[in-house]
Amino acid sequence: MDPLTNICANFEQVGQAFASHYYNVFDNDRGQLGSLYKDAVSMLNFEHSAERPGQFKGTAAILQKLKSLPFQKVQHQIVTLDCQPTPGGGVLVMVCGNLLIDAEQMPQKFSQVFQLLPTGSGSFFIYNDVFRLNVG
Amino acid sequence: MDPLTNICANFEQVGQAFASHYYNVFDNDRGQLGSLYKDAVSMLNFEHSAERPGQFKGTAAILQKLKSLPFQKVQHQIVTLDCQPTPGGGVLVMVCGNLLIDAEQMPQKFSQVFQLLPTGSGSFFIYNDVFRLNVG
Repeated sequence: MDPLTNICANFEQVGQAFASHYYNVFDNDRGQLGSLYKDAVSMLNFEHSAERPGQFKGTAAILQKLKSLPFQKVQHQIVTLDCQPTPGGGVLVMVCGNLLIDAEQMPQKFSQVFQLLPTGSGSFFIYNDVFRLNVG
Repeated sequence: MDPLTNICANFEQVGQAFASHYYNVFDNDRGQLGSLYKDAVSMLNFEHSAERPGQFKGTAAILQKLKSLPFQKVQHQIVTLDCQPTPGGGVLVMVCGNLLIDAEQMPQKFSQVFQLLPTGSGSFFIYNDVFRLNVG
């Protein structure tokens, strides 16, 4: 099948449901996010860090990074959410929002983009994941 | 070819060169951006507008939207740039930056994500394009 003509018809609903689920799991127990990634193929860019260019590949490396983040309590608030279909029945999801960490009074602004790909059994996994705080 | 194993080897260089070129053209004469999109398949989400959900499809509709933006002078400053390979030899590019418009003193923060796909003749075109000001 030509990937350019294989379009996810309900990409808006898929993207919205995914983002709601992802941040709900993240904010409650981010150690449970592993089932949303796919071993060996999923990628995460998470800010820059000692591990430049900040890229983690595969479920284990991604989960280790997410679990190592130095906060106890976190809340993601979605301000804007955009979805577009991608080749091969995937969905691009871009979120801009506020991040409330521990007892900090001022939220930090963040942007995050995901590309979701179909698993082949009716659901989706995260192939691309890029997270950035909006600084500078 | 399995799209998941068809990986753009120099995705970082492709993404960086693209972003530099795109914003240089945008800031000098955004009417010239048409050659970076592909007719009938490229998509743009640009904020929200009367045309909800803010999505424009195809080179003509995208260019019309970009040319209609109500400013004379614009400058994009890239603060962070992240690149990841995508299936089928594509490249995901996420930019967070500052937007300087006309004589405004305070830059506005923006986030923009592109998915570039190979044209088949050694270059790339924009398949997905989502632009957001970081507000609220």
